[in-house]
Amino acid sequence: IKQFEHGQGTADKGEYRHYMLKEIYEQPQVINNVLEGRIHQGRVLEQIFGTNASELFDQVKMVQIVACGTSYNAGVVARYWIEKLAGIPCMVEVASEFRYRATVCMPGTLFITISQSGETADTLSALREAKEQNYLGFLSICNVPGSSLVRESDLSLMTNAGPEIGVASTKAFTSQLVALMLTTLILARRNGYAEEEQMVANLEKLSGLCEQVLALDPAIQSMAEHFVDKHHTLFLGRGTIYPVAVEGALKLKEISYIHAEAYPAGELKHGPLALVDDDMPVVAVAPNNSLLEKLQANLEEVRARGGKLFLFADSRAKVKPGNDLQLITLPDLATEMAPIIYSIPLQLLSYYVAVLKGTDVDQPRNLAKSVTVE
Amino acid sequence: IKQFEHGQGTADKGEYRHYMLKEIYEQPQVINNVLEGRIHQGRVLEQIFGTNASELFDQVKMVQIVACGTSYNAGVVARYWIEKLAGIPCMVEVASEFRYRATVCMPGTLFITISQSGETADTLSALREAKEQNYLGFLSICNVPGSSLVRESDLSLMTNAGPEIGVASTKAFTSQLVALMLTTLILARRNGYAEEEQMVANLEKLSGLCEQVLALDPAIQSMAEHFVDKHHTLFLGRGTIYPVAVEGALKLKEISYIHAEAYPAGELKHGPLALVDDDMPVVAVAPNNSLLEKLQANLEEVRARGGKLFLFADSRAKVKPGNDLQLITLPDLATEMAPIIYSIPLQLLSYYVAVLKGTDVDQPRNLAKSVTVE
Repeated sequence: IKQFEHGQGTADKGEYRHYMLKEIYEQPQVINNVLEGRIHQGRVLEQIFGTNASELFDQVKMVQIVACGTSYNAGVVARYWIEKLAGIPCMVEVASEFRYRATVCMPGTLFITISQSGETADTLSALREAKEQNYLGFLSICNVPGSSLVRESDLSLMTNAGPEIGVASTKAFTSQLVALMLTTLILARRNGYAEEEQMVANLEKLSGLCEQVLALDPAIQSMAEHFVDKHHTLFLGRGTIYPVAVEGALKLKEISYIHAEAYPAGELKHGPLALVDDDMPVVAVAPNNSLLEKLQANLEEVRARGGKLFLFADSRAKVKPGNDLQLITLPDLATEMAPIIYSIPLQLLSYYVAVLKGTDVDQPRNLAKSVTVE
Repeated sequence: IKQFEHGQGTADKGEYRHYMLKEIYEQPQVINNVLEGRIHQGRVLEQIFGTNASELFDQVKMVQIVACGTSYNAGVVARYWIEKLAGIPCMVEVASEFRYRATVCMPGTLFITISQSGETADTLSALREAKEQNYLGFLSICNVPGSSLVRESDLSLMTNAGPEIGVASTKAFTSQLVALMLTTLILARRNGYAEEEQMVANLEKLSGLCEQVLALDPAIQSMAEHFVDKHHTLFLGRGTIYPVAVEGALKLKEISYIHAEAYPAGELKHGPLALVDDDMPVVAVAPNNSLLEKLQANLEEVRARGGKLFLFADSRAKVKPGNDLQLITLPDLATEMAPIIYSIPLQLLSYYVAVLKGTDVDQPRNLAKSVTVE
């Protein structure tokens, strides 16, 4: 099988009960793999994207990202980063939607595809259709060298995550995020962004932060027990953490068959609040207090109906854990690193819920690792 | 109360059991209200948006739509229309996300807000923040004349839907869609769109089509029985029908407390397919066969696990209804009108499910009609 042939990592579970758990635990290493050879004197090297990369990046005025599933969620995080740090507009779209509608290509638009396998059918078709339009150029963020997506793109950045066997993507997602931050920095330096070295230093600290978060494993395993008998879960996030909440909900869907759905926190009162009761726990992913404060009023209503809150936050969160609120405290970190680090406890949560439910973690029903057909 | 003061419609249930049902049945009239006085000789009048509207529209190179909840779903439909018919890029964002992040404003961008009440806190704040940036101008699509949103915008188009009392928005949504199509046509004529008169003729046929769809009431009422004992539902759509599926799922959440979630149909195999079994019916909204054909393979897997499909399609759908597939056939209609017309049977479906469940249809738990606080 093609996937097993390339690069680092092994296709062996080793000491781990499942590939998924092994892959979650590989993340401190994988994050360093994405950075290795890509940084020089505190700055991202441009040639890692391919020859003539600099010339192409010089002309970028807008970005269009296209992907499916987990890779799409990574793209949504990148949108927030690119607009904030690089100051250029960025659109993100699900590949199966993009390819079947009349889209508009503005001059100077870089087309970015994201796919673990590089063979995702809808993403590949979207790339091929986009090539008929006047996009400035095509960049793929991919884990498999020589895949169709890489071969058909002008530029590519490999995520070097090694083979991912578990159907539910984990290390592929976080490595895509790191690769997308490298891409963001390359675009940002052309728009006067002055903090590249600081951001690179933050990236270099990620691996250690990953280790710290993995040490929360027992606490998360214990939290998982509260989800085993539930059929629903609501995930809330805001900003770059909203797509992380979406990805967290997707994991829980995929492997534990719990109907989890994510909402941007501000939309709670526009509908989903009606659903929350003691059968629907709420997972709030809130690396900063601004979200928490805004949630407070809503959460009172939720509590009044027996709703339970599971909060992932840092040491600044001013909340009192209790019967209706469980808290996992993550290390304090730079704002832009939060989507990468906060993904990890959500992966562990869905993993342990699935294990407790006894589902086939690495091979969930009805799903394929790479969706190479429409 | 302010809402009761303005214009057409009454705040009286009349012969209807609930305001929501009355408001669903008002739609043939409401759609004509949106068009009344807005069309002349088969073309949309520009002055209905305000003085100097034409001058402002002449300069539009891009559109940014911001809204919450149901109004956001209307905005997503408009995105597909604007990019296809007017050929200019259109971005849509949830107001609570837009206002709290660093966004990029490109020269020539028209900022459109959508809100039934015109007092939605997040939307109003987003408008105020956007005014600090160099947007070309500000247009509001709104149902309440003299509301804050209207007063603070350069241009506005009133939806004239009359007071909406039911918390779950119905006629406000379809009237917003009609108003957004009028806006699309104004933009499209500046980009060489040649079919305005045909599209206006389609809009003028909408009211009659609405009546035809409302006549499906008994069939939908009977379909509703299949949802009463379910805790989940998956809605699928593609293109302009994807946001209609999202809105259909939102209705079911809001008033029947069923955890309904919508997916763009192509994303099914990237995760949610794992969830589908006999406890999770799938509602597919498919006004054309291209989606149906693509769903076919997935649906076989779903059926194998006892999943049931509820399909809303037109006479061209080549499917055989049976124990695992129920079909509601809608009238054949012009593609661009489908999001407006297909919204109506989904409103009726959620209404009848809620009635069968005995929930408080017009005043669902935890929700307010206008979200005037954050």
